[in-house]
Amino acid sequence: MLTKDTVGALVSSLPDDVVITDVDRIEKYRQDRAFDPSAGVPAAVVRAECTEHVQITLRWATAHGVGVTTRGAGTGLSGGSTARSEGIVLSTERMREIRVDPATRTAIVQPGLLNAEVKAAASAQGLWYPPDPSSFEICSIGGNVATNAGGPCCVKYGVTSDDVLAMQVVLADGTAVRLGGPRLKDTAGLSLTKLMVGSEGTLGVVTEVTLRLMPAQPPPATAVAMFATDAAATSAVLAITSSMRPAMLEYMDSVAINAVEDMLRMGLDRGAAALLVAQTDAEGAAQHRELNEMVAAFERHGATEVVATDDPEEGAAFVVARRSAIPAAERRGKLLLEDVGVPLPRLPELVDGVHRIGAERGVEIALIAHAGDGNTHPLLVVDPTDPASLAAGDAAFGEIMDLAISLDGTITGEHGVGRLKRPWLVDQLGPDVLALTRRIKLAFDPDGILNPGVIL
Amino acid sequence: MLTKDTVGALVSSLPDDVVITDVDRIEKYRQDRAFDPSAGVPAAVVRAECTEHVQITLRWATAHGVGVTTRGAGTGLSGGSTARSEGIVLSTERMREIRVDPATRTAIVQPGLLNAEVKAAASAQGLWYPPDPSSFEICSIGGNVATNAGGPCCVKYGVTSDDVLAMQVVLADGTAVRLGGPRLKDTAGLSLTKLMVGSEGTLGVVTEVTLRLMPAQPPPATAVAMFATDAAATSAVLAITSSMRPAMLEYMDSVAINAVEDMLRMGLDRGAAALLVAQTDAEGAAQHRELNEMVAAFERHGATEVVATDDPEEGAAFVVARRSAIPAAERRGKLLLEDVGVPLPRLPELVDGVHRIGAERGVEIALIAHAGDGNTHPLLVVDPTDPASLAAGDAAFGEIMDLAISLDGTITGEHGVGRLKRPWLVDQLGPDVLALTRRIKLAFDPDGILNPGVIL
Repeated sequence: MLTKDTVGALVSSLPDDVVITDVDRIEKYRQDRAFDPSAGVPAAVVRAECTEHVQITLRWATAHGVGVTTRGAGTGLSGGSTARSEGIVLSTERMREIRVDPATRTAIVQPGLLNAEVKAAASAQGLWYPPDPSSFEICSIGGNVATNAGGPCCVKYGVTSDDVLAMQVVLADGTAVRLGGPRLKDTAGLSLTKLMVGSEGTLGVVTEVTLRLMPAQPPPATAVAMFATDAAATSAVLAITSSMRPAMLEYMDSVAINAVEDMLRMGLDRGAAALLVAQTDAEGAAQHRELNEMVAAFERHGATEVVATDDPEEGAAFVVARRSAIPAAERRGKLLLEDVGVPLPRLPELVDGVHRIGAERGVEIALIAHAGDGNTHPLLVVDPTDPASLAAGDAAFGEIMDLAISLDGTITGEHGVGRLKRPWLVDQLGPDVLALTRRIKLAFDPDGILNPGVIL
Repeated sequence: MLTKDTVGALVSSLPDDVVITDVDRIEKYRQDRAFDPSAGVPAAVVRAECTEHVQITLRWATAHGVGVTTRGAGTGLSGGSTARSEGIVLSTERMREIRVDPATRTAIVQPGLLNAEVKAAASAQGLWYPPDPSSFEICSIGGNVATNAGGPCCVKYGVTSDDVLAMQVVLADGTAVRLGGPRLKDTAGLSLTKLMVGSEGTLGVVTEVTLRLMPAQPPPATAVAMFATDAAATSAVLAITSSMRPAMLEYMDSVAINAVEDMLRMGLDRGAAALLVAQTDAEGAAQHRELNEMVAAFERHGATEVVATDDPEEGAAFVVARRSAIPAAERRGKLLLEDVGVPLPRLPELVDGVHRIGAERGVEIALIAHAGDGNTHPLLVVDPTDPASLAAGDAAFGEIMDLAISLDGTITGEHGVGRLKRPWLVDQLGPDVLALTRRIKLAFDPDGILNPGVIL
């Protein structure tokens, strides 16, 4: 029970200013970027500085049966860090150490470091950390691990899970354990490291991760194409993915193109139905060959305009256009940000279906996608002052998940289930897998103190 | 309880000749290639032909509390498929369907297909399935998934787990569930697919896997070098892995070189302390650059002889030499096959320590390694007719695992824990992680019918 004395016991067990209970200072820890209006006011926020602080917090939470919502930088989009009034928030923002080891090509990182900071520290040693969520400049590596975050480069380089070799985790009862190690191969016991990735704070609190790094890649070459129809664009996507491994293959629909053009005035064709941006980071002559293959695929599938460049700066401008789609769409209203994915051959049906749902519900949807891996982000634009618009947006949001499931897809490719998508999870997984998931959750967290209400 | 009536119920619930109970016909299902002399005689062997046969078998096993040892091709090296007299064996050898889909670059495969058959089916469509255990011509894909198998190419392309996108699994109570899907990104719910990989038949029976395929790679170029000391060879390994991603980087020690030379007479330098084989599968000019980098690293670190070739056939001869190390060592006695791995900077200490243990125990050890990822296979040669030799081999086998653990390493990189390595698992994972593992096992298999005695 969360009495004043209970909270006081937490405050006095940790150093000064680690725990805050002042309502004003707590305010910014109540929500993530899902901006769930039903977010509560937690009784306290623990800003842990080390693993021991996390252990003290979870021991206390177990002793008093208090739910703990763990958060990194608070950039989550599914409400995985929405605070509860009957619980506390545990922030890892102050845990920011990193140690890059070129000999093992690994980095040992605390969860509060931003993705961009991990990339920078690796880069300083001539190395590269691939996963690149669009929010990489503001999202934490702990949040990336919690959601198994992706990004544009994942089409070639995989998701966060592929690069996590080991971690330190504090279990619900406060026990700190180490899983895996700085070893590329290790099949001793169950793959608990991989199980933790994507578990959204429901199985334990990650206090350190060991990440696999790559040698720095050559600067990419970029091909951009405009299409008169979505069908032409998605057929070009399939032609490319079935014959090569692009380093990036991104899609924007007409609404996204126009929103970006409104903001950036870079001369995009406002009349196009779709834009694709593809990159290759192959080396030397192979890069030219891959660039030519991508251009040929665009032309063969009816592109109305193709630009190809091996100037990284020129290419980066188009990547910026794609990355700007979310802020550009945000200028048109409040966004409901979807994250559905499908097996690649179903991508044309998903794109058509999303546009159909938007038209039927009268909701403007800017559709952007990591097209090369079938992961799309329909951005539903609603008017937050208009209850009818909000209701139409909510309805469309759910229908898009139903559509993805009907196409053998997923309700979330890289953002996580959080609280927002929990009602749809059973439709994707089925009751048997959900029941199994519950049993695993109980094996980790018998008292249900870890991020209650998330995923399950 | 396993009465005659109980077994009769199983026989009559499945089609003719699916279940065998004849002791002579059962004989070949009693052991895997760990050849555990304590293997029992199972009451029956079920040679399932489809998922439904597996469901019937597990329902029966749950109803009667009978332990089920699942096996693929029986090439396991850790005793994960050692049969028990108080249980039955479930073989997936007859489940051999495959469907390759070039559009999604995936293959849907039943567990009984051999790794080489998966590679061939992919290759027929211009695609490639990377994982390449040395036993790829005789091991099953189901066994690869059960052990999270690796191989020489894993230094660049990762282990089996990295390529498993989805699976169908029969749970202990006979429920069949689907995990994941043919989607490169999917973070809906816990990562149960990844948890299943490497679980050695203790959490469920995999009846179908969806594998990620790659476009076929260019033919490799090969660099081979001989070294006068192990220290020189391992320093060359570290120089290569810290600056590039070789497609293969293999090591053989003096004993292995001589055993192979005895068998193949290919002109290897019998006086060398170590041999390294490295390959690059980069394209065009990049391949030449990488080959030159590898040669330069060999020379800089004191190689006494270096051969470089971009002729794939010539390169393949050296790969054959490395692959022949196990059969060559087998001519010298019975082998105890180790599978320990360490973080790369500890590789020199592991190599030295293994040789020291061999000398101290008077056990001949041929040491081969997937050096580029720190995974080594000390091959302990013992005389099966000499109890003193067997005892010395057993002692050295354990000491090598103790050594790996002391170097922050793993007791198994790619073969699995099975029964053979179970006593050492707690020393690597620690009691807290082992306790957590037990709770997860219970969540999947409350009655303990799935591969009892393996891992836990």
